[in-house]
Amino acid sequence: MSEVNRRLLLKTRPEGRVKNSDFDLVEEAIPEISDGEALIRTTYLSLDPTNRVWMTDVPGYLPPVQIGEVMRSGGVGRVVASKSDTYKEGQLVNGFTGWQDYVVASDSLPFTPLPEGMDVPDSAFLGALGMTGLTAYFGITDVAKVKEGDTVVISAAAGAVGSVAGQIAKILGARVVGIAGGPDKCAWLVDELGFDAAVDYKAEGWKDKFKEATPNGVDVNFENVGGEVMEAVFGRLNIGARIALCGLISGYNDAEASTGPRNFSNLITRRASVQGFLILDYFARIPEAVGQIAAWMAEGKLQSRETVVEGLENTPESLNLLFDGKNTGKLVVKIAD
Amino acid sequence: MSEVNRRLLLKTRPEGRVKNSDFDLVEEAIPEISDGEALIRTTYLSLDPTNRVWMTDVPGYLPPVQIGEVMRSGGVGRVVASKSDTYKEGQLVNGFTGWQDYVVASDSLPFTPLPEGMDVPDSAFLGALGMTGLTAYFGITDVAKVKEGDTVVISAAAGAVGSVAGQIAKILGARVVGIAGGPDKCAWLVDELGFDAAVDYKAEGWKDKFKEATPNGVDVNFENVGGEVMEAVFGRLNIGARIALCGLISGYNDAEASTGPRNFSNLITRRASVQGFLILDYFARIPEAVGQIAAWMAEGKLQSRETVVEGLENTPESLNLLFDGKNTGKLVVKIAD
Repeated sequence: MSEVNRRLLLKTRPEGRVKNSDFDLVEEAIPEISDGEALIRTTYLSLDPTNRVWMTDVPGYLPPVQIGEVMRSGGVGRVVASKSDTYKEGQLVNGFTGWQDYVVASDSLPFTPLPEGMDVPDSAFLGALGMTGLTAYFGITDVAKVKEGDTVVISAAAGAVGSVAGQIAKILGARVVGIAGGPDKCAWLVDELGFDAAVDYKAEGWKDKFKEATPNGVDVNFENVGGEVMEAVFGRLNIGARIALCGLISGYNDAEASTGPRNFSNLITRRASVQGFLILDYFARIPEAVGQIAAWMAEGKLQSRETVVEGLENTPESLNLLFDGKNTGKLVVKIAD
Repeated sequence: MSEVNRRLLLKTRPEGRVKNSDFDLVEEAIPEISDGEALIRTTYLSLDPTNRVWMTDVPGYLPPVQIGEVMRSGGVGRVVASKSDTYKEGQLVNGFTGWQDYVVASDSLPFTPLPEGMDVPDSAFLGALGMTGLTAYFGITDVAKVKEGDTVVISAAAGAVGSVAGQIAKILGARVVGIAGGPDKCAWLVDELGFDAAVDYKAEGWKDKFKEATPNGVDVNFENVGGEVMEAVFGRLNIGARIALCGLISGYNDAEASTGPRNFSNLITRRASVQGFLILDYFARIPEAVGQIAAWMAEGKLQSRETVVEGLENTPESLNLLFDGKNTGKLVVKIAD
C-alpha cells in the first residue's frame, strides 16, 4: 500500500493534445477520515472524452476543473478504512475518484458500492457495467428507441460507448453498422461483437463503402464523433430518422466548440431529430440498467472489452489514446492491484 | 380575362440571387380541358423560401424544377371552366398553380376548394390560412409542443411562418420573443401582434439585447433562419429545450447546403432536441388546423398579414424580397383580380 497519496493537479490548461507537463504530480499524506467518511484506494481510473472537456475553461454540464485542483475523473477503488455505515472495508466502489491514489468518500462526495461475486474484472465496472455502458444502454433504448429492423449506425463503434451501444442494438434486433478507425477494429466489431458491417473511416473511399453498408439508409444514428463522420451519416438519413447525440469527440481538442454538420438542413428534408443526452439524467434508472447489462453478459450476449494502461503518472498523455483512436473498448488506467 | 396563358419557365439555374432573366416568360394558348378537369385562373402566387430551393439541382422533399419547366409554386385561383364534379365554376381553390396565369386541375394535379364567406382577402389563404400558417400551427403545437410558461424564441418572426407561430405560442400562454430585421418589424411584433419582446438582429449589440430578452433562457426555438441567429439561440438553451427546425433561410442562396451551428455541442450539454419537419406530413390534419386558425382569427386573437406585390412578370426577382427581409408577413404576388 502506497505510503503517500500521489495526486495529479491541473497546472496549465492544455492547448490541443494533453501533455503530462500540463499537470503537477504531487505527493501528499494519505488523508485522515472523520466520522461518516471512508478512505478509498483507487484501483482503476476511467479515461473519457469528457475529461478533456473539463480541462477547458468553458462551462459544461459540470464546471471546468480549476488550476491547482486534482483532475476530475471517474474510477473504481476499494474501501481501505471506514468510519461510515455506508461503506465496509474491502468493498469495491465506483465514483469520482479523481486522478489520485486515495480519495475520501463522504456525504458530499458519495461512492456507489458495486456488486461482488460477478465473474468480471474490476475494470468492467468502468466499461460495459460503468458509465460508458450505461450511456450506451440509455442512448439506444430510451433516446433512440431502437426497434427490430432498424438500421442503426454507430460512430466510434469500437470505443467504450459505441461497442456496447452496437451490441445492445443487435440484441434488440437491429441491423448494426459500425464506423471505426482501422481494419483491426472493424474486424473485431464484425467477427467478435456480431455487427452486421463495419466501415473503416481511415480507408480511402470509405464514404462509398458506408453507402454500400447502408443500402436501405439510416434509421438511427448513435453519434459519438461529429465532423465528417457525422456528415456522412446525415447524408444517408431515412425519413423520420433519430439521432442520439452522445458525443462529438472530433472537436474536443479544438479551442472552439464542436460545430454542426454542413448538411444540417437534411434534418428538415428527412424530418429527422437530434436528441442530445447525458447519463446524469438517468441516475435513478442505473440499477435497472446494470441488472439488464449484467444479465446479457452472463448469457454471453454482450462483451465488455477494456484497454488497460498502467501508472498514475502516465494518465494525462494516455488520454490522447482516445483521440488517436488507439483504444479498443473502454480505456482505463490501472494504478493499483 | 387574359387571352393567353403567360408562363414563367426556368431557363437557367440562378446562382445566388434570382434574376428575372433566369426565366423565360412565354405566352401560350389557354389550355383546353378534358372530362374530369377544370381550368383555374391564378389570382395570387405564394412566394416562399422553398421556391429558391426547388431552383437548385439538389434533390429535396420534392424534385428540383427542370430547365424548361414552369416554375413550381403554391397559389390560389378561381375555377373559370369545369368538366369535373369536384370543381364548380367561380370556386376559390388552393394548390400548385405554378408561375402562370392558368393551370388545369386534374386527378394528377388536384386543388383544394376553399371556404367561401369568410371575411378575409383571398391572399389570407396563402397566409395564416395557407401552408405557411399551417406550418406555424403544427410546428408550435405538434413539434415543439409549446405549453404555458415556456419561453419561445421565433426567428424570422415577422415573416409568414414566424408571425403566425409567435401568435399561436402567445395564445397557448408562452412568453414569446421574436428575432426580426429592423425596428419597424420589431415594433409591429410587439405593438400589433402582442409579442413579449422583439430583437432587431441588424442592430449593433443585438446579441446582448437577445440575452436581456431571455432572462430565463430558451425553452423552445421555432427556427426559420440558421446561421448566426440560430447560434445565438443555441447559446441560451435551457436543459431539455426543444427546437422545431422549420427552415434555414440564411443559407438558401448558397451553393452549399445550410450548415449547422458552431455551438452544436450545446445540444448535449443542454440535453436539447432538434426536430426537422415539413407540412407535407400533416396533410391529413389540415382541416382541423384551418378550423382552429379561422376560429382564432374570428375571435380577433390572430392576424394574417400579407405583403402584396403585383404582376406575374415581376415574380422571379420578387422572391429576393424574402432573402432581403423586405416582406412583413406572407409575401404574395397578385396576378389577377
